[in-house]
Amino acid sequence: MVKVGVVGYGTVGQRLADGVALQKDMELVGVADIEPTLAILALKEKGMPYNLYLAAPENKSKFDKYGIPISGSLEDLIKKVDIILDAASAGVGEKNKILYQKYNKKAIFQGGEKTSVADVFFHGYANYEKGIGKQFLKLTSCNTTGVIRSVDCLDRGIGISNVIMTIIRRIADPGDYHRGLTNALRVDPVPSHQATDLMLVMPHIKATGVLVHTPVTHGHIITIVATPKRKTTKEEVLELFKAHPRIRVVRIADGFLGNASMFKYARDLGNLRGDMYEIAVFEETVTVFEDQIVYAINVPQEAVVTPENIDGIRAAMQMQTDRLEAVGLTNKYLKIGGH
Amino acid sequence: MVKVGVVGYGTVGQRLADGVALQKDMELVGVADIEPTLAILALKEKGMPYNLYLAAPENKSKFDKYGIPISGSLEDLIKKVDIILDAASAGVGEKNKILYQKYNKKAIFQGGEKTSVADVFFHGYANYEKGIGKQFLKLTSCNTTGVIRSVDCLDRGIGISNVIMTIIRRIADPGDYHRGLTNALRVDPVPSHQATDLMLVMPHIKATGVLVHTPVTHGHIITIVATPKRKTTKEEVLELFKAHPRIRVVRIADGFLGNASMFKYARDLGNLRGDMYEIAVFEETVTVFEDQIVYAINVPQEAVVTPENIDGIRAAMQMQTDRLEAVGLTNKYLKIGGH
Amino acid sequence: MVKVGVVGYGTVGQRLADGVALQKDMELVGVADIEPTLAILALKEKGMPYNLYLAAPENKSKFDKYGIPISGSLEDLIKKVDIILDAASAGVGEKNKILYQKYNKKAIFQGGEKTSVADVFFHGYANYEKGIGKQFLKLTSCNTTGVIRSVDCLDRGIGISNVIMTIIRRIADPGDYHRGLTNALRVDPVPSHQATDLMLVMPHIKATGVLVHTPVTHGHIITIVATPKRKTTKEEVLELFKAHPRIRVVRIADGFLGNASMFKYARDLGNLRGDMYEIAVFEETVTVFEDQIVYAINVPQEAVVTPENIDGIRAAMQMQTDRLEAVGLTNKYLKIGGH
Amino acid sequence: MVKVGVVGYGTVGQRLADGVALQKDMELVGVADIEPTLAILALKEKGMPYNLYLAAPENKSKFDKYGIPISGSLEDLIKKVDIILDAASAGVGEKNKILYQKYNKKAIFQGGEKTSVADVFFHGYANYEKGIGKQFLKLTSCNTTGVIRSVDCLDRGIGISNVIMTIIRRIADPGDYHRGLTNALRVDPVPSHQATDLMLVMPHIKATGVLVHTPVTHGHIITIVATPKRKTTKEEVLELFKAHPRIRVVRIADGFLGNASMFKYARDLGNLRGDMYEIAVFEETVTVFEDQIVYAINVPQEAVVTPENIDGIRAAMQMQTDRLEAVGLTNKYLKIGGH
Repeated sequence: MVKVGVVGYGTVGQRLADGVALQKDMELVGVADIEPTLAILALKEKGMPYNLYLAAPENKSKFDKYGIPISGSLEDLIKKVDIILDAASAGVGEKNKILYQKYNKKAIFQGGEKTSVADVFFHGYANYEKGIGKQFLKLTSCNTTGVIRSVDCLDRGIGISNVIMTIIRRIADPGDYHRGLTNALRVDPVPSHQATDLMLVMPHIKATGVLVHTPVTHGHIITIVATPKRKTTKEEVLELFKAHPRIRVVRIADGFLGNASMFKYARDLGNLRGDMYEIAVFEETVTVFEDQIVYAINVPQEAVVTPENIDGIRAAMQMQTDRLEAVGLTNKYLKIGGH
Repeated sequence: MVKVGVVGYGTVGQRLADGVALQKDMELVGVADIEPTLAILALKEKGMPYNLYLAAPENKSKFDKYGIPISGSLEDLIKKVDIILDAASAGVGEKNKILYQKYNKKAIFQGGEKTSVADVFFHGYANYEKGIGKQFLKLTSCNTTGVIRSVDCLDRGIGISNVIMTIIRRIADPGDYHRGLTNALRVDPVPSHQATDLMLVMPHIKATGVLVHTPVTHGHIITIVATPKRKTTKEEVLELFKAHPRIRVVRIADGFLGNASMFKYARDLGNLRGDMYEIAVFEETVTVFEDQIVYAINVPQEAVVTPENIDGIRAAMQMQTDRLEAVGLTNKYLKIGGH
Repeated sequence: MVKVGVVGYGTVGQRLADGVALQKDMELVGVADIEPTLAILALKEKGMPYNLYLAAPENKSKFDKYGIPISGSLEDLIKKVDIILDAASAGVGEKNKILYQKYNKKAIFQGGEKTSVADVFFHGYANYEKGIGKQFLKLTSCNTTGVIRSVDCLDRGIGISNVIMTIIRRIADPGDYHRGLTNALRVDPVPSHQATDLMLVMPHIKATGVLVHTPVTHGHIITIVATPKRKTTKEEVLELFKAHPRIRVVRIADGFLGNASMFKYARDLGNLRGDMYEIAVFEETVTVFEDQIVYAINVPQEAVVTPENIDGIRAAMQMQTDRLEAVGLTNKYLKIGGH
Repeated sequence: MVKVGVVGYGTVGQRLADGVALQKDMELVGVADIEPTLAILALKEKGMPYNLYLAAPENKSKFDKYGIPISGSLEDLIKKVDIILDAASAGVGEKNKILYQKYNKKAIFQGGEKTSVADVFFHGYANYEKGIGKQFLKLTSCNTTGVIRSVDCLDRGIGISNVIMTIIRRIADPGDYHRGLTNALRVDPVPSHQATDLMLVMPHIKATGVLVHTPVTHGHIITIVATPKRKTTKEEVLELFKAHPRIRVVRIADGFLGNASMFKYARDLGNLRGDMYEIAVFEETVTVFEDQIVYAINVPQEAVVTPENIDGIRAAMQMQTDRLEAVGLTNKYLKIGGH
């Protein structure tokens, strides 16, 4: 049993903890945070299913006020685990890294950290082998994770030489009050970080991307123009997508009209928090046009990185050396695929 | 075991089915619908935990296309049950009523139906006794249900003579694409139906209300000015609210900033579909001003009517004749209260 | 001709400058700002109808880059004028005040400044007399300005003893990217500043208010419960509102459905920037309920304070000593009323 | 002086009327509509600068109620003019066509009509010559008009063989209450009509497109991947765009962050209704990537089709036979270009 700690119990951290807790070959030792946020208050109301460690000792009295039990300090947690999933606020992971080094523990950082924080910029499906045995991995951000899933899928099946994306991004997560956008679309300079990140993880592919922020909270929509290395057909592309456990091919005709349908569906499935691990490909958008593959995906930003983070544990801890065996176990314990 | 059927498996119907399934003294015989909606597709993907009856025989082939098993017709369902929760689209309940009468079954209609469809306009806490043994009940709409909970709570504790509401209404449910509002607030003529409905259920109280539609999906905010029959204090009002199982008193200072916080919190609690049965009162809004009580509540529109519907079953089926015993059992099985 | 300068050429400052330029008994000497914002770029594209003074000399090269002519420094502007309308960012006015004092000039501050910055908290209709001859006035914020217009109107006609508001606030102005809210309503602690501000301007009236932020950009909706000192009727209330030049009584039945209709209508009228100086009262919301007056207004946040600012110039400069003469001249030059 | 009538005084029709009124070689005889909408009420409040004809005689009393003068029937208008700009609701133009044929008058239909309604599917810059002397033209929709402007610009300068678009569409116009979208992105099947329409107007170019609806009201953002017939550079592309009078190249670095900035800027320019005729290209998005041109544009949906409609009058009425002379006159009278 690999012992895992999660640092930062926010939108991503909560989901990483839930995901690790489902792995039969891992043990979630605890989670750490610095403030009694709503996520922590919910943990308390649920009866503390996870042990909580305090990463800001000076805030102890704030937690006492709510009667929230604390199992120790951040260092206490680090000492007890084999590996940390660091989901602290962007930039904090770099500071935490000093502690991980002090105790010679492995750690996996999220997309908000600088790429230089880690030994490998990691994606479970695209470059699992590179992460094997490494001390520090950095995961791609939610959008890049989703895009790479689909591009890697096509690349392994057909061969892809370059990719042009339009990322139609949700501006905030549900419940966010500290950021937002109202009745506005915002355009970022080209290329977006998703394109440069993709090229770091998949250096044999060229990519560019336009990022447009939109005032919605549940899931990004990304349109992708991928140039294949050989001729292909819509049917071949769909078959590849359908065979990928972390990709759902959905039909607009069935009522999957966009990101809001995907979220509603995940809620109706009874998924914890209404989350979905899979990206969706809208079948009616898949087109082969002038020898280029065009398609649109939905990326559920809150939970999409959970499987790849768990893949990262498997790689860093050398739990599996075979890529497909590793991601397969992650999928099995998370109940991904079979849809 | 009272046998229950749910007709209409949409936003409300799904939640009624889930709620009935949790009652240890009821049996959910099945649900009925007319189209293979996303809710039905999710039921299929979950392995059909509820039996599905087809209310539109002509659509059988549509269900076959997805391999969705059908347990019978709407009449088959009606014949098997003691009582129906009718959550069909507004206006359809009135037509279904003919079938309920044909088989001499009881039924509970939702707020979208005309009030004349039922023998009693019902609210579990406010007028349970009126529903006892009746054949047809109509429940109040989501907003009215939430408002009445809080007004009935104050009325029983202090006595309320009149109520003025500003209903800041969410325009659509999450996942809705058939209705919406974009960058606009919409004002309706005064009085809103919530005020006239409140007076029907609580005829000893006078009420008026202004309804303003807003472009959000998770939960209404309602501000209420209630004139008490005697002097009171903020402390007394808060104490009454805190003692009510279906009311959560939350603090803005704790991070409960509005409807989006409530939805996030319900998701983080792990509640099915991220739902919440309780309305919330924002503690920092509770004020006694010039002998009037002012406060703001949050109404989670999707699930808020579930407990009162189940109360309705208890009343119509004469399962309990005592109001508090009835709502207490509903609360117990739905795990409401204790927060 | 009273000489006027406008400091801060943002959302409010632009409109104050336009408003002053229309007054036949005032001269707009110039406007001052610190950065080449879009508003300044538009001024440049229009051919510099107003002289621009630079309040941040260190930024001169930024303006040169666009070829924007600068007429002098902030102090140069102050020296040339009799009075400044200070519409700088909240808190900056207090610093600018030192310069106004240095040159012994009068100034009018906006709602974002501390009330202590000024000698009088001013509203053209409610307390014009208090501003006469004073050196420093502070205007009420957009919402408070709108509410006071309507409450003062009723108070002079009927007598008002107290007011309870629900302020349904737009979160950002059109074009804002630095703030926003997405799919969320936000509740603030009671009382809101609008209520406390109203009591400062109208100390004979008691007020409280709940503030709810909504994700829209064009105009607030405020519901008001006002307790009159004597019995009144809907007809009397409407008559009073209709006689007020800065209040438009509009009908939902005519298509004025909310804030978005008001903005559309102002654009269709050909008003500069699609602005409207008047607040609107939705006729179908005006109700007399249990001896209380209930109504809903629309406040166009960008331009609503312009007339009262100009009233402030009239008061501070002792241009008119009669309240109705003063506001009447402002209205005449701004072409308000007669609708 | 060519005599012009505008049928349908809605969002587009109002702007067509304003645009025609500015043409020194045209006379706006009048506008026609069927209901006293807000646009008509605003016309009334402005003192009827345009004569109004009634296209629904049975509604005469509705107009009388507001004291709106009527100059005659729709047929009266048709008889007085040389050409009609038909901006009636989608599908109504086809019915009106019978009247235009009866009086042997020319007409220009908007994008909402079936393409078969007209002799030519027209765009002022792309295929002016095809419209010369024709009786019935149909204009492209707002998005297609904007896309074609930019593609035609590149095609004439460099040569374009195919185009892949992602259309990030605003769901409603400001003031719309009859349609909207809330916290959702909606994906349409590929190809979108903009792509098929582009191929009808520019049959030598292949196109496809993904349409994603977003909950905003001011302006579409479209990302375009265009394959040129020869190698090109970012500099060459920008130079071509900058030389086009109906394209504004704007910089994100200057504060033009998206569609909301463009609308704000048009308001600050003092443009009537805050409108803009030009599309914008965001300079920092213009890229040449793997021999493909990538860029993002903003399309102000309300006014963008006005210039091309007026070009259409010039073509149909044979006012100019030279394309550049015709569009140049339109631009001159609308004050387009020179920015």
